[in-house]
Amino acid sequence: MLADPYPTRLNEYRAPLPRREPVVHARNQRRWEGPLDEVALSRYERDGFLWFDGFFSRDRIEPFFEELKEMAKDDALMRSEQVIQDPNNGAIRSVFGMHRFSEHFDRMTRDPRILGMVRQLLGSEVYIHQSRINDKYGFQGSGFDWHSDFETWHAEDGMPRMRAVSASLMLTDNNEFNGPLMLIPGSHRHFVPCMGETPEANWQESLKAQEIGVPDQQALAQLAEHGGIQAPKGPAGSLLLFECNTLHASNENMSPWPRSNLFFVYNSVDNTLDEPYAAPSRRPEFLATREDIEPLTMHDDFPELSGQGVEPLR
Amino acid sequence: MLADPYPTRLNEYRAPLPRREPVVHARNQRRWEGPLDEVALSRYERDGFLWFDGFFSRDRIEPFFEELKEMAKDDALMRSEQVIQDPNNGAIRSVFGMHRFSEHFDRMTRDPRILGMVRQLLGSEVYIHQSRINDKYGFQGSGFDWHSDFETWHAEDGMPRMRAVSASLMLTDNNEFNGPLMLIPGSHRHFVPCMGETPEANWQESLKAQEIGVPDQQALAQLAEHGGIQAPKGPAGSLLLFECNTLHASNENMSPWPRSNLFFVYNSVDNTLDEPYAAPSRRPEFLATREDIEPLTMHDDFPELSGQGVEPLR
Repeated sequence: MLADPYPTRLNEYRAPLPRREPVVHARNQRRWEGPLDEVALSRYERDGFLWFDGFFSRDRIEPFFEELKEMAKDDALMRSEQVIQDPNNGAIRSVFGMHRFSEHFDRMTRDPRILGMVRQLLGSEVYIHQSRINDKYGFQGSGFDWHSDFETWHAEDGMPRMRAVSASLMLTDNNEFNGPLMLIPGSHRHFVPCMGETPEANWQESLKAQEIGVPDQQALAQLAEHGGIQAPKGPAGSLLLFECNTLHASNENMSPWPRSNLFFVYNSVDNTLDEPYAAPSRRPEFLATREDIEPLTMHDDFPELSGQGVEPLR
Repeated sequence: MLADPYPTRLNEYRAPLPRREPVVHARNQRRWEGPLDEVALSRYERDGFLWFDGFFSRDRIEPFFEELKEMAKDDALMRSEQVIQDPNNGAIRSVFGMHRFSEHFDRMTRDPRILGMVRQLLGSEVYIHQSRINDKYGFQGSGFDWHSDFETWHAEDGMPRMRAVSASLMLTDNNEFNGPLMLIPGSHRHFVPCMGETPEANWQESLKAQEIGVPDQQALAQLAEHGGIQAPKGPAGSLLLFECNTLHASNENMSPWPRSNLFFVYNSVDNTLDEPYAAPSRRPEFLATREDIEPLTMHDDFPELSGQGVEPLR
């Protein structure tokens, strides 16, 4: 058996390791089979994320709020483990597995434009590893400390390699004051091993406030000195694609303006989960899909018009 | 005896009250006797603050760091009540009364350019009501909730009217990510009464994390909807002048870059302290000057050259 290329949750300090995979997984000629041009692909390789200002219109976003209001009335759902409360005030912080019980969300994950980009970046068919909504109420929503999603998914879910991408869709305007996502450009090219053994059922605490799987401050400082910090801001409907290993965080919402973002995590069908690399047991299905790993099909709003384009050359 | 025009620390909700004083106190022709032009004066009246990007050179700022290092070695000072620790990590959060034991700080409070502006805004001679340094270490410094300084100074120190101005001098660059000061433009024109009785020696807790003297979220939201939020950013040496009743706050420092700001509060000699309006007893002298209220004289770096200008016409 080969040694784990990304050791973490260690008892002894270990320096950051270089990434072992490509950032854009589509190889050679296939690199350009998709919606992203070379400028965008190179930027994604350099920074570990792409921002699309006002990608969807507000009209496309509004139905989600209606669904969210309906969900908030669903007592059984609200009491379930899929709903995470804010540690400071008990408000809804996250709801996981959104795409399973919402047709709107399901369709959004299969939007041709998003799915086209994600397949191009991952160089394969994809499925949803996790979906969630993160809410920060005005004056209340607390932040998220710096972390790499891949570090957690590798340690606690057994995701073998860095071949996943998160799509974050802004349901509200994201501005300087309502706790926008911050990213460290270039951090995705380094794996920062984290200290500390993963306790049993760590996720029950970590989704409220992460204690384990937190990179050390020296590594963070070096990466931020090198790459800086960026917090993309824009209107509701904006879209962020970020590589699974890009370090990110967000601050408290100290404004009166709520911040609500959807996250869909796409994983390559060639990167399905093993057993956890550094945790005593698997996390629940709503955090880490193992069953429903069929490749996503594109959702066409006008299926009756399909096949109207020019047949691609093969 | 007249009723308190600014009732606060109440048991019952009270709606915000309009400000009773002018914002620029110099009257009529005297308004223009000073370094600020009408554009700046009108902006200060509108927003409640003025930002001066890179007002001092870095050379002028560097000696303060040397002094701070020396101070950190002074065990007796570090153990004193004048030094406030961060509630999260025990690091130095604030040091009060800086200008009393530091000649650099004392001179800075009497810088002709700052003192000229402050006298013009307050329309009188001035003295230092309070001075402090606020430090936020990288990844560590916690924030300050929204508040009006005047509300505290009125309630706990007996400052009668809104006739004070804070000068904040940036010792480090202030950027989007290291917890810069945020202000609500226009909020200085409203007094927001706060709920809750002031406990004995409230300052021992409130300087770490304020619980009493916090405006209600509805009033904050209305003021922020109306005036927006601004966070001036700029290089070390930048200067912020803000009116004593302007609502302000700051978020956690989630960057590796430390943030260190000096504050000098200037009060009009015609606005010296009474007994506290809404607290059981006075706060210590290092938080609220009662003894040393002699008008400040300007510090001239070249006193031997004084009197070289053209005599003003009287």
